[in-house]
Amino acid sequence: MSEQLTEEQILSEENLQLSKALRDLSDIEEKLEKIDEQVNSYRIKITTPVYDERYEIISKIPHFWKTVLQVHSDFADYIPVSNFKYVDLIKNIKMTMLNNTDFILRFEFLGSEGFPEQSVEKTFKLCKDITKLKYTNKLTDDELLDMSEFGFLTSEPVDIIWPKEYDSINPDILLSNTKDDKFKKNYRQGMKTFFAWFSWTGLKHGKEFPNGDGLASLFMEDIYPHCLKHYIEAKRDIDDEKGASDSEIEDDEDDIEGFNMSSLTNENDEPATKKMKK
Amino acid sequence: MSEQLTEEQILSEENLQLSKALRDLSDIEEKLEKIDEQVNSYRIKITTPVYDERYEIISKIPHFWKTVLQVHSDFADYIPVSNFKYVDLIKNIKMTMLNNTDFILRFEFLGSEGFPEQSVEKTFKLCKDITKLKYTNKLTDDELLDMSEFGFLTSEPVDIIWPKEYDSINPDILLSNTKDDKFKKNYRQGMKTFFAWFSWTGLKHGKEFPNGDGLASLFMEDIYPHCLKHYIEAKRDIDDEKGASDSEIEDDEDDIEGFNMSSLTNENDEPATKKMKK
Repeated sequence: MSEQLTEEQILSEENLQLSKALRDLSDIEEKLEKIDEQVNSYRIKITTPVYDERYEIISKIPHFWKTVLQVHSDFADYIPVSNFKYVDLIKNIKMTMLNNTDFILRFEFLGSEGFPEQSVEKTFKLCKDITKLKYTNKLTDDELLDMSEFGFLTSEPVDIIWPKEYDSINPDILLSNTKDDKFKKNYRQGMKTFFAWFSWTGLKHGKEFPNGDGLASLFMEDIYPHCLKHYIEAKRDIDDEKGASDSEIEDDEDDIEGFNMSSLTNENDEPATKKMKK
Repeated sequence: MSEQLTEEQILSEENLQLSKALRDLSDIEEKLEKIDEQVNSYRIKITTPVYDERYEIISKIPHFWKTVLQVHSDFADYIPVSNFKYVDLIKNIKMTMLNNTDFILRFEFLGSEGFPEQSVEKTFKLCKDITKLKYTNKLTDDELLDMSEFGFLTSEPVDIIWPKEYDSINPDILLSNTKDDKFKKNYRQGMKTFFAWFSWTGLKHGKEFPNGDGLASLFMEDIYPHCLKHYIEAKRDIDDEKGASDSEIEDDEDDIEGFNMSSLTNENDEPATKKMKK
């Protein structure tokens, strides 16, 4: 009987040691998370001036962002094909990291018929307060739990002038006559455009531009940091396509003679592309 | 005629500016690559002491690595199920980063019948010199090009004492009698074991432990840095399975600091972990 008790005591002592070890491990995990944040801050700090330099250079390359966005397959998943007419007018993009999670995206559009030259800035911030969500019926309990634990992107709506051509689906215009037969259909169509993304808040699931957070993250994590890689790949694709069927793409020829850099520079140095190749 | 020439001149001037911009962009890319390296070095520097601390704590948690490795589905893809008997004896693992690409993995094994307690260290280094490869006939030109551009992992063979039980497939023993009928079959079987990985060089494609680089990278990129996450997940899985199957082991449900560690304290938790084997 007393032996039994001693065994239990030993077990309990072992348990105590084990729980201490597990608590220590949990502290380590917290330290590692903080290190992650610290490393990210460091990355942002030393990357920012180089991105600023890059921004200036890109502004000298015609159709840079058009080329990147036209060929980026994930980007195409977020917006209707017909929108590319206006996406093509994006002259430059600038991302500013506010901290490890929050950022500003600025889009600089060239003008076109029925669409003015304009720059639009949209800020994205991580939020963990799920009470701010206006519609939660489309979210599962697990999704809500994840959102409160890891946070979710939110954004204030910002003004953007829509193309005249889109008047019939422009939500602002439509809202002046909600009795119209086609109101709902047109409103929904408008909500899916790239322009509706600028009104996206992250708080009205199912009632605004769909997956606005995904599009924001795509710019932040992939399109912006890896734009040069995407540009080169896009240029190769275009060159390949040119090779395959000469007649298909003609009017692009004037921007660069195919981004086959060696043919481009007229100087015979086996240039940059090789170094940039990923 | 002269007008034609002027247009060409303008075009050529534009081309020159464009190629300068593209060269500048390529310089930016190089800067960004260097920043990546710099950030990685920084990460290694500040992570190392915390990993060292973690190593000490883990040594106090029985079956920590056994639990992690038993449930890690990717790890199980690299070695035969029968090897887990010995993988379970891994008491602790230590990774030391030498630089951004090179690292040492140390495995500390407990002893068992026919298998001595031992610690084995294996060093992995990135190499870009494809002339070092001894067999290239199984590699495509594209693979070789990638290897020379991005490098490939290599490693010096290191000694490990194989389990007595594996004498019949132990390559060192087999090589003393290559005339044996079953030599090839047994040799090949031995080559696929976890123990053969310690002889892996990365230079003899198709003639040594398969995908040794993948296994090394798996430890470096996932298993080692995220071991606590894997441990907690594994423990949850084990608990779930216990709950689902029946109450075969009814020990005290002592949740420790948020982890559901009900089974951890019981030294006789053999059955639950075995079930996890894939």
